[in-house]
Amino acid sequence: MTARFHSALLLEVIDLLGTFVFAVEGAMAAAQNGLDLLGLMVLAFATALGGGILRDLLIGSVPPNSIRDWRYPATAFAGAALVFFETGLVTHFPSSLLLTLDAAGLSLFAAAGAAKALDFNIHPFLAVLMGGLTGVGGGTIRDMLLAHIPNVLRSDVYAAAALAGAAVMVLALELKARPALATPLGIAACFLLRMVAVWRHWNLPRVAVH
Amino acid sequence: MTARFHSALLLEVIDLLGTFVFAVEGAMAAAQNGLDLLGLMVLAFATALGGGILRDLLIGSVPPNSIRDWRYPATAFAGAALVFFETGLVTHFPSSLLLTLDAAGLSLFAAAGAAKALDFNIHPFLAVLMGGLTGVGGGTIRDMLLAHIPNVLRSDVYAAAALAGAAVMVLALELKARPALATPLGIAACFLLRMVAVWRHWNLPRVAVH
Amino acid sequence: MTARFHSALLLEVIDLLGTFVFAVEGAMAAAQNGLDLLGLMVLAFATALGGGILRDLLIGSVPPNSIRDWRYPATAFAGAALVFFETGLVTHFPSSLLLTLDAAGLSLFAAAGAAKALDFNIHPFLAVLMGGLTGVGGGTIRDMLLAHIPNVLRSDVYAAAALAGAAVMVLALELKARPALATPLGIAACFLLRMVAVWRHWNLPRVAVH
Repeated sequence: MTARFHSALLLEVIDLLGTFVFAVEGAMAAAQNGLDLLGLMVLAFATALGGGILRDLLIGSVPPNSIRDWRYPATAFAGAALVFFETGLVTHFPSSLLLTLDAAGLSLFAAAGAAKALDFNIHPFLAVLMGGLTGVGGGTIRDMLLAHIPNVLRSDVYAAAALAGAAVMVLALELKARPALATPLGIAACFLLRMVAVWRHWNLPRVAVH
Repeated sequence: MTARFHSALLLEVIDLLGTFVFAVEGAMAAAQNGLDLLGLMVLAFATALGGGILRDLLIGSVPPNSIRDWRYPATAFAGAALVFFETGLVTHFPSSLLLTLDAAGLSLFAAAGAAKALDFNIHPFLAVLMGGLTGVGGGTIRDMLLAHIPNVLRSDVYAAAALAGAAVMVLALELKARPALATPLGIAACFLLRMVAVWRHWNLPRVAVH
Repeated sequence: MTARFHSALLLEVIDLLGTFVFAVEGAMAAAQNGLDLLGLMVLAFATALGGGILRDLLIGSVPPNSIRDWRYPATAFAGAALVFFETGLVTHFPSSLLLTLDAAGLSLFAAAGAAKALDFNIHPFLAVLMGGLTGVGGGTIRDMLLAHIPNVLRSDVYAAAALAGAAVMVLALELKARPALATPLGIAACFLLRMVAVWRHWNLPRVAVH
């Protein structure tokens, strides 16, 4: 069953690209907070792979994929190396490109995370949560390591987009859509919601308590 | 063996009630820290279910119960929804009622956590620690997500009450008491110690280091 | 296979000594941050055993060794007790002695962690990372509980020494050296690098980003 999501070379390449983008973002956050080279490597690793590792531990896929397959940590460290050796280049990336790449990574991680949870016989409702965790778990660990309240809990439509994309995919699968249809549908839903949210400056509602 | 703690409908209802109370407290903390709706849901989930999830990962019960049984996250999100839609109602709960409900949840979590660890053949000494972790692990994760030093490490007799209750239950079982006696004994010990500690403003000792 | 690293009584004694040293350091950090007795116990436990527990969860050795073998938590709590009851004694330890003992603990943890990962058929590259995690994971959790950015990410040659020691050992094993040679070689490499780095005030490079 897992084969249907991982056998295709294309999906694997996209997965590694998402890992690279998240790793660059993690290493940039490390550099902005004055961490050293080791800190860059750790934050690249945690941001890119932390969400998937948490998901794998929770659904019982042990050792997690990123601990079994050396290409994932190697890709994360390549992202850290880019930030370390080409800092100027990275800081001059247009932010709209970074936002788009990040949204693409988020969408893929959310869909792939929910799909893997279903493969491990996790209930559809929890598979959606596992999709969201895969998408935002790494950034949450990064912010905890930086002793910040995770951004994802405070503002923006980010985790909500990951959950929505995972929900669309899981719902489509429950309605007997083929994976080859349901997966791109979920990825597109997350990506579109995220891009529109950035463009329109959407935020989730909050309540005031004193 | 596990059956003896989970078969009874009553225990399950109490367990879900404890989950609900802890979730409301987590969502309140999220609202007080300015988090959005997603933050409320995450903190409700983490506070209510984080301790049990950590325990399950450590004793080898994978996937953890809260990832296998959708009713637990659903109950946690119901707690978050109550805080979100009825904030005024929740903030006007009498604090003595909240403290009592919290102490009841703590007592039940500590006893159930230690019992589950014993069922998984964990050494009695470590089963007591697993009981304490089940009781306070969720609140610790909540405080870490809020970038605070966890309250439980600083003041109050809270984790100590959970450990004491778990110890009483494990000791009674080691002395061949029936579970139907040992479990309520442990729950009562934790609850009483916690309530007296609140009433008398007890704190654990500390040492001064400069 | 695991037998070759754990059967020897001497290695077990050294492992428990390393646990004790790390526990004392964790409890000292707790006391310096105003935590109570429970906080001392938790930070001693997390600092001494957290790295090994994370490694065991990731490589699939569940329950982790420190949850199966009561002597490890008992040793950690003994370290907390020493700080609690003999605070004056501990604060007057010569810092050079503490640094040396800490470097010895780090070296042993890094080598033992990488060796255990290899025993669980983890890829050599990831086994090196698991060695580093075993050495510095506990201190990282301690700093997260104290709501600090982990020191290990910011300055000093500490995690890098652990990674170097693990790499030397794994490389030697890949080159068909006997474990009885490769293990002491890795321990010595980490210890020497750490001690020289302390003596020469070495730091890892960092990049400036604004």
